[in-house]
Amino acid sequence: MAKDFFTREENYSRWYNDIVLKAGLAETSAVRGCMVIKPYGYAIWEKMQSALDKMFKDTGHSNAYFPIFIPKSFLNKEADHVEGFAKECAVVTHYRLKNDPSGKGIIVDEDARLEEELIIRPTSETIIWDTYRKWVQSYRDLPILVNQWANVVRWEMRTRMFLRTTEFLWQEGHTAHATKEEAVEETLRMLDVYTEFAEKHMAIPVIKGLKSENERFAGAVDTYCIEALMQDGKALQAGTSHFLGQNFAKAFDVKFSNKAGSMEYVWATSWGVSTRLVGALIMAHSDDNGLVLPPKLAPIQVVIVPIYKSSEEYQKVCEKAYEIKNMLDAKNISVKVDDRDTHKPGWKFNEYEFKGVPIRIAIGMRDLENKTVEIARRDTLEKASYQQADIANKIEHLLEAIQDNLFRKALAFREDNTIKVDKWEDFKSVLDSRGGFIMAHWDGTAETEEKIKEETKATIRCIPFENKNSEKGKCIYSGEPSNQRVIFARAY
Amino acid sequence: MAKDFFTREENYSRWYNDIVLKAGLAETSAVRGCMVIKPYGYAIWEKMQSALDKMFKDTGHSNAYFPIFIPKSFLNKEADHVEGFAKECAVVTHYRLKNDPSGKGIIVDEDARLEEELIIRPTSETIIWDTYRKWVQSYRDLPILVNQWANVVRWEMRTRMFLRTTEFLWQEGHTAHATKEEAVEETLRMLDVYTEFAEKHMAIPVIKGLKSENERFAGAVDTYCIEALMQDGKALQAGTSHFLGQNFAKAFDVKFSNKAGSMEYVWATSWGVSTRLVGALIMAHSDDNGLVLPPKLAPIQVVIVPIYKSSEEYQKVCEKAYEIKNMLDAKNISVKVDDRDTHKPGWKFNEYEFKGVPIRIAIGMRDLENKTVEIARRDTLEKASYQQADIANKIEHLLEAIQDNLFRKALAFREDNTIKVDKWEDFKSVLDSRGGFIMAHWDGTAETEEKIKEETKATIRCIPFENKNSEKGKCIYSGEPSNQRVIFARAY
Repeated sequence: MAKDFFTREENYSRWYNDIVLKAGLAETSAVRGCMVIKPYGYAIWEKMQSALDKMFKDTGHSNAYFPIFIPKSFLNKEADHVEGFAKECAVVTHYRLKNDPSGKGIIVDEDARLEEELIIRPTSETIIWDTYRKWVQSYRDLPILVNQWANVVRWEMRTRMFLRTTEFLWQEGHTAHATKEEAVEETLRMLDVYTEFAEKHMAIPVIKGLKSENERFAGAVDTYCIEALMQDGKALQAGTSHFLGQNFAKAFDVKFSNKAGSMEYVWATSWGVSTRLVGALIMAHSDDNGLVLPPKLAPIQVVIVPIYKSSEEYQKVCEKAYEIKNMLDAKNISVKVDDRDTHKPGWKFNEYEFKGVPIRIAIGMRDLENKTVEIARRDTLEKASYQQADIANKIEHLLEAIQDNLFRKALAFREDNTIKVDKWEDFKSVLDSRGGFIMAHWDGTAETEEKIKEETKATIRCIPFENKNSEKGKCIYSGEPSNQRVIFARAY
Repeated sequence: MAKDFFTREENYSRWYNDIVLKAGLAETSAVRGCMVIKPYGYAIWEKMQSALDKMFKDTGHSNAYFPIFIPKSFLNKEADHVEGFAKECAVVTHYRLKNDPSGKGIIVDEDARLEEELIIRPTSETIIWDTYRKWVQSYRDLPILVNQWANVVRWEMRTRMFLRTTEFLWQEGHTAHATKEEAVEETLRMLDVYTEFAEKHMAIPVIKGLKSENERFAGAVDTYCIEALMQDGKALQAGTSHFLGQNFAKAFDVKFSNKAGSMEYVWATSWGVSTRLVGALIMAHSDDNGLVLPPKLAPIQVVIVPIYKSSEEYQKVCEKAYEIKNMLDAKNISVKVDDRDTHKPGWKFNEYEFKGVPIRIAIGMRDLENKTVEIARRDTLEKASYQQADIANKIEHLLEAIQDNLFRKALAFREDNTIKVDKWEDFKSVLDSRGGFIMAHWDGTAETEEKIKEETKATIRCIPFENKNSEKGKCIYSGEPSNQRVIFARAY
């Protein structure tokens, strides 16, 4: 199965696409730019949702649901916001079809034109802040800590499955606070939640930081992000958390009476991650044998394949297989016994290897005699014989070890590919030869950032938190003074 | 709190609306016909989703996600389907806005008109069967057992929160099978799943049956449904399961090679329930004191309210309150301690009563001395003093008793309001005086059904399974022969 697909070296982009298609994660649809998320891909997203949803609830948030439609005039209320989103909106203009009088199918019924066009939400700040106006009178009504799981639409011209699609699934948190401090604290808290999710669940190390003005969310005062490095040396923004100041409160007139009894505008945050994380997951860990999944997000954590020659052997090894499955089930490990007699073990081995199942257990007659099983790790492709005694605990530990190993491997890769660069020529040659995170000085101006982007397609991924007090230097492009290095990369 | 709202007797419709608004379940939005589902209402939907999702997975289904957009031409491929849905579609015609040259806001960019208009899914059979064509070649690819949780849009002219909204949330199962028998079996299996969910989780008894041709899903061969009776004597369709025959396979050319090697069209089912179930839940159990929720779907199952005079007392009773909370948490009972010192106990009692929390526990100083707590049941409004010893088990049993009591009460109500009627005059007077399920003979023709609907607004809710072999008689309207009674009612 792995033979008829591209390696990373040969063609990274097709390698990615092949994994998405051949591992059964998603496929393109009849609608331009929209994908079908297939059951195996959707199961990964469900695992992500479940972990994130728990983290949101543990930090005091509740879910709610707001309309998919945004009146056109709403978009226009926040100047930067409309600038950022108006150019990529799906617009609903009519609410009825009718039979074509010529008898050829159906046409839009011009009598059913909307008075005001509706936009399909590209993000929900406007409709939500229009609602919050009704929810907030006094400081006692604050904070509002709400999240929404939803689909959104941005009319992208160039799409790639999971990474950039016209419709995608995401969560968007929208909170309202009485003070600036509290809103900033919330913004950073959720950035930490995303960081923990990326590192502990996705096994992807990320760099936390602040976006430059050019890369800021349309309508935000400050956009914070986590940035991950993919195996081809390109960066991927894995989550953003925005401090929105009072911009949306002012646009939608959301005020509250404070403890002193005077009226103030409410402070806002918003934060989101999307199905693009599935793309990040694929690109961070997978190899030339297919998908590699961290155990915490793998829909199937362990697959058991019986090895047999006769139907008598089949019965015996299957019995043991299900016995082991039951022990793993009891530990909430997700196990599949593939006892289909329509496929050979070798075919199954390839199948689950390609699908990134972290652990494969094979059981044959000799294993029954020796009280062993053969275990193969997807991350290292190592095989070993294990005694059956205490197997559930061993598997549990092995899953932890795999999770850990994937993170350490990704971290080592990122460290190897994070490079301090001080000369403009080096900047360009590093970008073209190997990519990666380039730590370079920048004069802090949007103009310089724009020029660098035009010349190299590299953008400032973030102004990282960690080196805030690092050495001063000179901008790699303009030579003007710089207070700290920022992270440049080409990005998805 | 309960005083400023309508009773069922005074105005059933406003009573319903008041509960939705004042219990914080939902509210209308700036977009006509679309509601905002507020956190408390959404938490009920999450409980429903979680229970249903488990039942779907236990019966072998996986979730997936298909595009929200349906090319206009797809709708037209199945003749009945387009007839049923074209008149209530939101139509996307453009993909960009631009600044109005006159400087007044933003307008639709006419240069960004879609070649083919996109419909926002009112249901997904068409886009899904267009996809299944690629998934199915051989009988080995069948069955496909897929479900989708999604938002859908039907441009309704008259909307009511939860019961009928332009956008609503739902799940839609879409399965593909090699044989008619298997597809019919699946259709009925999912009807049973819905029945179990309605009765065991929602505590609402339902009648299973077949829809008449008039009420059939647009594109189905047979539509099965579960019908519930609301307190005002109107019926509510609580779930439908459709046997689609080969209609969509033929429309989208989905064939498979069977074991004998010849090509056949695939057999289909689809089945769905929506956020309308939240409306059913409200109307089935609530009373003139507000919302009543069955424990299995209550976001908060138990609320603990401390009763105190001094801050010293506050500390002591809160300590006990959290001690009890921890014991209930350990049993996965969802508990809230409302220890806010900004509200009086009486205010809190009214609040949680109105919000339908099944059990309220009050703890005061005398309770500490006597090792008791005061427990109030929402369903019966009874209060009793309980010994603290073994309190978690007692609460657990009480929750079961409340769940059971709500079901029995709803069942008794339905039995009292299911009436055999044999004369046309009685049919009309029963409908006008008390409503309910009217069991009457029908001649089986669409014409008669249509006339009865015109004259009385009553429709055939279903041809029930249970009386399939019941007595013959004469149609209540036409006097023509009838093989069995069917269920008539006015309906939501």
